[in-house]
Amino acid sequence: MGMPVGENVKATVRGPVDHKTRDQILHAADAHFRHYGYNKTTVADLAKAIGSSPAYVYRFYRSKQEIGEAVCAMTLGSILSIVRPIVEQNRPATERMRRLYRTLVAQGFEIFFNERKLHEIVTAAVDGQWQSTQAYRRELDLLVRRLVVEGREAGEFERKTPLDDACQAISSTLIPFCHPILLEQSERAELEASAERVASLVLRSLAP
Amino acid sequence: MGMPVGENVKATVRGPVDHKTRDQILHAADAHFRHYGYNKTTVADLAKAIGSSPAYVYRFYRSKQEIGEAVCAMTLGSILSIVRPIVEQNRPATERMRRLYRTLVAQGFEIFFNERKLHEIVTAAVDGQWQSTQAYRRELDLLVRRLVVEGREAGEFERKTPLDDACQAISSTLIPFCHPILLEQSERAELEASAERVASLVLRSLAP
Repeated sequence: MGMPVGENVKATVRGPVDHKTRDQILHAADAHFRHYGYNKTTVADLAKAIGSSPAYVYRFYRSKQEIGEAVCAMTLGSILSIVRPIVEQNRPATERMRRLYRTLVAQGFEIFFNERKLHEIVTAAVDGQWQSTQAYRRELDLLVRRLVVEGREAGEFERKTPLDDACQAISSTLIPFCHPILLEQSERAELEASAERVASLVLRSLAP
Repeated sequence: MGMPVGENVKATVRGPVDHKTRDQILHAADAHFRHYGYNKTTVADLAKAIGSSPAYVYRFYRSKQEIGEAVCAMTLGSILSIVRPIVEQNRPATERMRRLYRTLVAQGFEIFFNERKLHEIVTAAVDGQWQSTQAYRRELDLLVRRLVVEGREAGEFERKTPLDDACQAISSTLIPFCHPILLEQSERAELEASAERVASLVLRSLAP
C-alpha cells in the first residue's frame, strides 16, 4: 500500500499467488467498474463484494489503480484473443488485413461499451498511459508486421518500401479504430464504414 | 443565461454586435484558460480582467461554455489559417499532401500546447462535441478533397477509386495528427515522424 507502482507491474506480482482470490477480485472489479464506474468504486466495495476486508485485497493489489490496470489488461487481452486468430488464419494477407480493421472496431464497441461506465477506467488508463494499453499497442504492431511480412512473401504486397516504414504507417492508421476515446466519440456504423475505407486505402498502398 | 446553446451558436450572436468588447472577452478568456485552465476560470474572472461586470459579459455570451466554444473556434481557425494557404499553393498535389500532414502536427503542438493548460478546454470541447471542432473537421475534409481532385486532374493520382471513398479514408488517416487528445498523448518528434510515414502511405495508395 502506498508504494509507487513500478514499471513492471506484472513482473512483480504482489502477495500470495492465489489465483482464485485474484480472479475473484478482478471479476468483482470488472462488474463494479461497469456498473458503478471506476471513479466511484472503492477498494472497500470490492472487498465487501468478495466477502473480505480491504486489508486482504491489499495483499494482492497495491491500489485501486493496480486493480484497474489488471482489469484493463484483461479487457484488452480479450480483444486480442479474438483478433490474433484472425491474423493467424491460413488465408490471403489482403483478406486478413481487411478483417483486422473490421474486427477491431466491432470488438472495441462490444467490449468497451456494452456497459457505458467502463469508459471511466478506459479514460484513466489512457490518461495515465497505463502499461496495459501500451502492451496492447505493441501487440497490435506485431500483428500488423506479421501480415505485411506474410503478404510480401506471398507476392500480394509490394516490397520496395522499407518494411518498418510500411508497418508503422499502417499501425498509425489503426489508431482511430482502436483508441477507446475515439471509439466513444464515434457512431458505430460510421466507424465501421470508415474502417472498411481505410483498410482499402492501406491495401491500395500495399499493391505490388 | 440559462438558455440551451442552440445548434447554430454563431448564427445567433447574442447581445450588441460590439466587436471590441467581444474581442476583449475572447482574448481575456484565451489568456485565462491558458494560464489558469478552463475549469478554474469563471465568468466573474473574465469580467474583472476587462474591467467589467459578469452581467455585462453575459450580454455577449450565455455561459462560460459559449465563451469556450468561441475561444476554441478562434484557436482552430488559426490552425486552418496556416494550413489552408498550403493546400492552395500552386505546387504538385503530392507535395501539398505531404505538407498538410506535416503542418497539422507542427501547428497542433504549437497552438494547443504552447501553454499546457489549454488542454482542459480542448478536452471539454472534444468531450462535448462542440460545434467548433466539428466545423474544423469538415473544413479539413474539404481541403483533403481539393487536393485529391486537383491531383487527379493533374494526373498525379489514380482515378479508379470512387472519389468519396478515397477522400474519406484519407481524412480518417489524419485523425491521429489533428485530434488534440492524441496529440497530447504523443511525443512531438515521434508524431512528426509518424505523420511523414502516413503521408507516404497515403501517396502510395494514390499512385496512378
